[in-house]
Amino acid sequence: MAYFDAASSAPLHPVARQALQASLDEGWADPSRLYREGRRARLLLDAAREAAAEAVGCRADELVFTSSGTRALHDGMAGALAGRRRVGRHVVVSAVEHSAVLHSAAAHESDGGSVTEVGVGREGRVAVAAYADALRSDTALACLQSANHEVGTVQPVAEVAHLCREAGVPLLVDAAQSLAWGPVEGDWSLLTGSAHKWGGPAGVGILVVRKGVRFAAQGPADERESGRAAGFENIPGIVAAAASLRAVRAEAAGEAARLRELTERIRVRVPELVPDVEVVGDPERRLPHLVTFSCLYVDGESVLHGLDRSGFSVSSGSSCTSSTLTPSHVLRAMGVVSEGNVRVSLPPGTEAGEVERFLDVLPGVVREVREKLGAPVTSAAGAAESVTVDALGLSCPLPVIELAKAIGRVRVGGTVSVVADDEVAAVDIPAWCFTQGQEYVGAEPRPRGGASYVVRRLV
Amino acid sequence: MAYFDAASSAPLHPVARQALQASLDEGWADPSRLYREGRRARLLLDAAREAAAEAVGCRADELVFTSSGTRALHDGMAGALAGRRRVGRHVVVSAVEHSAVLHSAAAHESDGGSVTEVGVGREGRVAVAAYADALRSDTALACLQSANHEVGTVQPVAEVAHLCREAGVPLLVDAAQSLAWGPVEGDWSLLTGSAHKWGGPAGVGILVVRKGVRFAAQGPADERESGRAAGFENIPGIVAAAASLRAVRAEAAGEAARLRELTERIRVRVPELVPDVEVVGDPERRLPHLVTFSCLYVDGESVLHGLDRSGFSVSSGSSCTSSTLTPSHVLRAMGVVSEGNVRVSLPPGTEAGEVERFLDVLPGVVREVREKLGAPVTSAAGAAESVTVDALGLSCPLPVIELAKAIGRVRVGGTVSVVADDEVAAVDIPAWCFTQGQEYVGAEPRPRGGASYVVRRLV
Repeated sequence: MAYFDAASSAPLHPVARQALQASLDEGWADPSRLYREGRRARLLLDAAREAAAEAVGCRADELVFTSSGTRALHDGMAGALAGRRRVGRHVVVSAVEHSAVLHSAAAHESDGGSVTEVGVGREGRVAVAAYADALRSDTALACLQSANHEVGTVQPVAEVAHLCREAGVPLLVDAAQSLAWGPVEGDWSLLTGSAHKWGGPAGVGILVVRKGVRFAAQGPADERESGRAAGFENIPGIVAAAASLRAVRAEAAGEAARLRELTERIRVRVPELVPDVEVVGDPERRLPHLVTFSCLYVDGESVLHGLDRSGFSVSSGSSCTSSTLTPSHVLRAMGVVSEGNVRVSLPPGTEAGEVERFLDVLPGVVREVREKLGAPVTSAAGAAESVTVDALGLSCPLPVIELAKAIGRVRVGGTVSVVADDEVAAVDIPAWCFTQGQEYVGAEPRPRGGASYVVRRLV
Repeated sequence: MAYFDAASSAPLHPVARQALQASLDEGWADPSRLYREGRRARLLLDAAREAAAEAVGCRADELVFTSSGTRALHDGMAGALAGRRRVGRHVVVSAVEHSAVLHSAAAHESDGGSVTEVGVGREGRVAVAAYADALRSDTALACLQSANHEVGTVQPVAEVAHLCREAGVPLLVDAAQSLAWGPVEGDWSLLTGSAHKWGGPAGVGILVVRKGVRFAAQGPADERESGRAAGFENIPGIVAAAASLRAVRAEAAGEAARLRELTERIRVRVPELVPDVEVVGDPERRLPHLVTFSCLYVDGESVLHGLDRSGFSVSSGSSCTSSTLTPSHVLRAMGVVSEGNVRVSLPPGTEAGEVERFLDVLPGVVREVREKLGAPVTSAAGAAESVTVDALGLSCPLPVIELAKAIGRVRVGGTVSVVADDEVAAVDIPAWCFTQGQEYVGAEPRPRGGASYVVRRLV
């Protein structure tokens, strides 16, 4: 059994468990009470705040504990936007932020605000110049993650923070994926994190608001956590979260180097072992423990089930594994293949042998799914000038499989038209062309929905 | 050491501790993932939901877990109000609800809604007829606690639920103080609770929305907990909360009978042991574990410190113990004395001997504070027609102490005028008159703030 989905949630760190158990006895009372149980709880809360602030690199009175990273983002964005409402109601986000950021931005837009999404390159990184262009005189808030949660690409936070500071716009950094590895550099204004990503318990997030940043907490008044996070404090969870952050930081340098080698091995070996794979995300400026690749001609859910049966727990940004039936917005923004997507994120302590076993198992799992779906093995040289494929009613990855079969029936320079109504085809057909060296000519919408996607054979 | 503040937060129940520790190993993964760690987490979450729903008396798919009781109230009220926005924007609350309800109502009012506060009698209970009068054709939501958190009075929830149902208005019941003792009776529509009040861990609340109740969750979209409670689920906390609720319920009948005797003993003995005390709240229809009394001529903070030094942890609704410097809105709404207020709420397992020790210690603590403040021992028979007391700049309980001294200097039928600028005097002087059998004539505002409070001596 190997759990390779630390980016979703990391198992509880042993130090977190100890701290949690110890503070169950001392930290259950109301820290705002004057009696001894209350004073003990307050001491624990204050010490946890000091420890977390030190790890983040801020003052203790700038940091509050929320009930989750999602709540920290929701409440942090709402408070920062309200605090600068006189400046304007424009918010800038990258296109690859966590859904909590994008959903907050959408809620702000529904409420009359405006949103600019800064696009990313194929490796998932925003260009600093593009981010600069998005800032306006009425921009109330800018948001940028420290590193992407699906592909691991590290964002240019310090540079973007610098230009935001020059423009007088506060920058909120979602640091959920990177806080375990180190503080966020640069002159940011707000920062959020989530304890269960760094080996702390669920139910604890952090929200940091630098002194001098205008902030007006939204929602009903509540005196807890400086009025910024409503509800009775979960002190045992908070103590465990702070202890765990300190513990993972103490091990971070060594663990980062070790895990980077293991993920590098996956980056190199998977394309050698499995045909028609695209490794996505930046190969260099990336999180040490995370690697993502997409396998053509398979659906993510079948690969996940196959890997689960073989003892490996990974996640996928493919449409087939999500209840919304849309592929990951991150992969779509990057323009990379979303079908057969696999994200491997190694928890601290992962052994090299587990990664080798994963590399042993993966090719067979992918091959089995491809065989079941009738995926093309080789592209033969055909003679036809053009071929039209009817993929109506077929869903990911079948339209791409049909395309790959049909390409073998046309001559070089000929075209294949794929008629499909699965909306994922609009992402995956262009991405397939890119990875296969074929030309994506374009799509023509059909009157009754879907489109005809035209591909020219180049090789 | 005796902790008598269970109404603020109860120590973790041993069953909750066991459940928490067991589920730390099984419940840390993302329950929406398809791999085995995710499926295990999902099983735990589903089982906890079933158990909690059974204890509440609802369907499992009507109950979501929130991050606190406060969040359940904030989000439950906001969702219910938004769901019935077409009906109107009027909300009815009792005057003695928890601050999370009143602050939500205030936020709704700031946003253009309207609020009716239904007053309570001297025992802290709303009159069903008064509640009925408050309902209007544009009432979107009504809120009533199952029992009051400061004085323990049980509210007529079933009757109010019935009339709300007839009026087509959903009733939200804040059941935080009573869920440990049993389900809430009557045909309510929404219900909230808080795990750390029933011996569960902090960081877990519940929100129940009955099928058929219009509800539109507010804030940014989030797929967790049916879209009603944003953020990654705190499964170990949730499992512990559900286990604890089941455990306290199994012991509830016996424990309620036992603690009711102990609180009854306090109700009877305190006025015998300490002069000038008012026991507040309903003597019969009340929570079994909670009793509240106010001691004239002392400040709550000094009494709390004195009791803390003697090994007793209690809370107070007096102004002097809260950061806002206003007395408890509950005591004010009831029109009872707020000075020297002491709330005793016994956790399960409290021994009779601890209560006896409390009764031994209390008179000395109150006497010591009274001596320090120069409180009157007896009211002598005076001769003056009228006396004016300058209590400007004095704060609770000193204006009342000056009044009590001055009453001894006037003849029966004569008056004392107390000139005071401490706003608590407006609550405590009329309440003092009521408890002492004197007539409160009225208050005349002074141009520069404060008022002249006139009292006629009757006895």
